[in-house]
Amino acid sequence: MFEFELLHIDKQTGARRGRLHTPHGVVETPVFMPVGTQATVKTMSPDELKDLGAQIILSNTYHLHLRPGEDLVEKAGGLHNFMNWDRPILTDSGGFQVFSLAGLRKVKEEGVTFRSHLDGSKRFLSPETAVAIQQKLGADIMMQFDECSAWPCSREQARTAMDRTIRWLDRCIAAKTREDQALFGIVQGAFYVDLRVECIREMAKRDLPGYGIGGLSVGEPKDVMYDVLEALCPEMPVHKPRYLMGVGSPDCLVEGTRLGIDMFDCVLATRVGRNGTVFTRDGRLVVRGASCKEDFVPLEEGCDCYACRNFSRAYIRHLLKAGEILGLRLCSIHNLRFLTRLMEDAQKAIEEDRYGDFCREFVRRNGKDVW
Amino acid sequence: MFEFELLHIDKQTGARRGRLHTPHGVVETPVFMPVGTQATVKTMSPDELKDLGAQIILSNTYHLHLRPGEDLVEKAGGLHNFMNWDRPILTDSGGFQVFSLAGLRKVKEEGVTFRSHLDGSKRFLSPETAVAIQQKLGADIMMQFDECSAWPCSREQARTAMDRTIRWLDRCIAAKTREDQALFGIVQGAFYVDLRVECIREMAKRDLPGYGIGGLSVGEPKDVMYDVLEALCPEMPVHKPRYLMGVGSPDCLVEGTRLGIDMFDCVLATRVGRNGTVFTRDGRLVVRGASCKEDFVPLEEGCDCYACRNFSRAYIRHLLKAGEILGLRLCSIHNLRFLTRLMEDAQKAIEEDRYGDFCREFVRRNGKDVW
Repeated sequence: MFEFELLHIDKQTGARRGRLHTPHGVVETPVFMPVGTQATVKTMSPDELKDLGAQIILSNTYHLHLRPGEDLVEKAGGLHNFMNWDRPILTDSGGFQVFSLAGLRKVKEEGVTFRSHLDGSKRFLSPETAVAIQQKLGADIMMQFDECSAWPCSREQARTAMDRTIRWLDRCIAAKTREDQALFGIVQGAFYVDLRVECIREMAKRDLPGYGIGGLSVGEPKDVMYDVLEALCPEMPVHKPRYLMGVGSPDCLVEGTRLGIDMFDCVLATRVGRNGTVFTRDGRLVVRGASCKEDFVPLEEGCDCYACRNFSRAYIRHLLKAGEILGLRLCSIHNLRFLTRLMEDAQKAIEEDRYGDFCREFVRRNGKDVW
Repeated sequence: MFEFELLHIDKQTGARRGRLHTPHGVVETPVFMPVGTQATVKTMSPDELKDLGAQIILSNTYHLHLRPGEDLVEKAGGLHNFMNWDRPILTDSGGFQVFSLAGLRKVKEEGVTFRSHLDGSKRFLSPETAVAIQQKLGADIMMQFDECSAWPCSREQARTAMDRTIRWLDRCIAAKTREDQALFGIVQGAFYVDLRVECIREMAKRDLPGYGIGGLSVGEPKDVMYDVLEALCPEMPVHKPRYLMGVGSPDCLVEGTRLGIDMFDCVLATRVGRNGTVFTRDGRLVVRGASCKEDFVPLEEGCDCYACRNFSRAYIRHLLKAGEILGLRLCSIHNLRFLTRLMEDAQKAIEEDRYGDFCREFVRRNGKDVW
């Protein structure tokens, strides 16, 4: 029911081309997963996501637990039915949101007490409750409940969080009862490479169906993140998917893939899209900008997305200026299609053993650190 | 290029079934026209409008003049190209908006000076400028610049506005140069039936391709509006389309059609949709309401719209509660499909000489005045 095939390793870089089998179908990797925080990818319909080639989406346990609640989703027949998405879904555990969004959190060995960012109500999440919620949501892949460390972070803090994350992993494994869901561990250890390596070695003993990498892209310079990945990835189980959590700028997708990552997710594409900024193969375009005012070409020449096939920069700029929702939709569609196509192109480059060239060409056009 | 065929008159009521030929295709009447104020029907893509059966849309001269400006639209190749809508478009003249939206307006025989509701800038609209703007926009049907009277309105005010509207009509006719656009007059005269009749008799002498009815649904009770229509419609040219401007609740569409109207437009469907209220064959449903919380049925059983085919009330309520744009989209789609189908059903009932039964059945299910 859940299997990862490693199809090919790029001879230039070691980048991986894989195929993930899930109860709701196959995911070709490397893959970018659009984020549907509240059981919807912002502004998008499921049909539009399919049209742009989205293979799998992510949804957030923390948000769905608070609203509408996992019991309602379960009554609806699970998240797939509730939101009418019949392809794979991954849910995170709420661990990261508890640390980044919630108020007044208190971390104990048992779990985390916090206040809802919506209504201030007191809540509790633990490995057991995070698994119970995710089982009711019914995603194909669920993530363990983890303790995410921050940037910067002392070695002692990093070790404490990492050790606890491993203990919490075992409690998640023990709590899990559904056979049709895969549970991924989450490697922690902050920016201490030896802790990261220790963590994955310990987790690998559990022979999980996949591993997330948490606690990166939390404020550190990108090179610091890349250094961690460069040291960590060779230590990760070769035949299991590797998911770099919360990372999703075009340059990070390209570099992360080079370093051996298989899965990515991020709200960046839809968030900047709603602000009227779109990805292009040469970097970015601020559609609200005056340069687009009388520009009757697509957001990106040659792009095959719905927005680029049908509308001009000038029209989309007008929509954004006028506060019209279609403008937000079109920029979101373009950005998600951009990342999806970027990963499709990366897959092909890996298959043809030219992923190093692909990276160099990308950096030449985009610069190294534009997002 | 522009022709109206009167296909059939319902034997029970006198309701009309027609077909309007325009440069961008045929419109079957009676018809509801979704409103795309700022060159977009709020939240909707052109493809979605086609999917739900929209035959023709309306756009607003006042808004497009202020933003992005008719010159930009003309450079884009006209409104059809700009917004990528290849079916017919009707533009209003800005007359109504100048009276309802703009600030500090000053009406003189020459035209109306007013302040933009966007930036307070001083503007001027006249029969000549309204036609010039609409020619740059390039809709299939343009409306004359008129003076809209209010509710309540003295007989003297009504006569002044009506007389001026006729004089302005002649200036619009004189200003018009494009052959591929039809110009409709707008019958004014407030709630004075004799003035209304005088106005249409005068306008009919111009043998225009169609006639709007303005200055209704401006605050008066519905029965007052119906009384005007009942007296006015028999006086209107039989072989020309009749467009009741700004009217578009389900009950008004049904009753207006009965009284002999062929075309309608209104923002109600999309506006209440964005507020989370949807039309149903029994009246209305407040989707945000607690009754929908665990209601896993479609917005309206048996509805063929995208929202009803794919999502439950419970999901759409969740989207609305969570502030997600997809919720606004789905309610808008449903309401527009509802009105479009209502008119399709009305067409069929007229063809089959049972439109009186159709009206009675509608009132039985909906009540007479629900919106």
